[in-house]
Amino acid sequence: MTIEPTDFNLFGSDALKAAFRRHASGVAIITAATKAGEPIGFTATSVTSLGSNPPLVSFNVAQGSSSYQHLVSGAQVAIHMLKADNLDLAKQMAGPKEHRFQNAEFRWIDGIPVFMQAAAVNIGSIRTRLEVESNAVVVVDIKSGFESGEAEPLLYFRRGYLTTGERLADNF
Amino acid sequence: MTIEPTDFNLFGSDALKAAFRRHASGVAIITAATKAGEPIGFTATSVTSLGSNPPLVSFNVAQGSSSYQHLVSGAQVAIHMLKADNLDLAKQMAGPKEHRFQNAEFRWIDGIPVFMQAAAVNIGSIRTRLEVESNAVVVVDIKSGFESGEAEPLLYFRRGYLTTGERLADNF
Repeated sequence: MTIEPTDFNLFGSDALKAAFRRHASGVAIITAATKAGEPIGFTATSVTSLGSNPPLVSFNVAQGSSSYQHLVSGAQVAIHMLKADNLDLAKQMAGPKEHRFQNAEFRWIDGIPVFMQAAAVNIGSIRTRLEVESNAVVVVDIKSGFESGEAEPLLYFRRGYLTTGERLADNF
Repeated sequence: MTIEPTDFNLFGSDALKAAFRRHASGVAIITAATKAGEPIGFTATSVTSLGSNPPLVSFNVAQGSSSYQHLVSGAQVAIHMLKADNLDLAKQMAGPKEHRFQNAEFRWIDGIPVFMQAAAVNIGSIRTRLEVESNAVVVVDIKSGFESGEAEPLLYFRRGYLTTGERLADNF
């Protein structure tokens, strides 16, 4: 079969955007604190495991974001995995930063704000950051955590929030 | 409300594993080629955007994997976003490496194997790798791509493959 160059008709950022329109993500919230003890945080769809021995998590963030200056090496962060019931929290933490913690139900644990209503939480400290162009990959050493009961996970796909659907296959 | 230390009753890798049991991911396939021109690749749940200007994608991989030695700076890779119809392909590319391309339907494009049946494909070259313990974050400069028609994305959750379910909210 001849390879038609026209099959690959998207270039640069158009190609990337088309790909991520087809890609669903789990939704998480990252929180931390400023040196003055103010809570900071944001909704993220880039949280992924970077190995379990030792336990490491990575996420991506824009260097221009208001949170970035606080996400320095050694800083404590909480990584919250969200369930469908956390929809309002996901939206609030993705909205204007001055309203993110307004009337939000959180506890201070190890100096950082933690949403105990999440499906699971990991707490750790930032090990390193890889700055690439205007963004960065942040690597976190996981120290401790908790999980709540079984729940539907919260997904992000095509600029909206969803739950999971039909189970197609088990991986063994 | 008193903070009970017992709320955080998981430590280290147990905390990480509990968190990722609650976190769903989109499913992708990464492919590349050896210097001898043999196809290599694997199913990945760590593909995420690292900015669209310039267009960058990151994914995580174990340094001990058979693919890692071929994922060097400058190497071409294809990143495939999978739809529910690609379930068998996802399972095959997550299975034993000697069978991954056996009877698989792919084309050679720019020297790398591409699955045209994916929901979308991005082709690019590896810019850099961040090695952390026994794993690595791989950063790819996206050059071109294509997308197919609308389709249900393929998800990974709790050691199995799923589709998306109910749409809960739009993000605007």
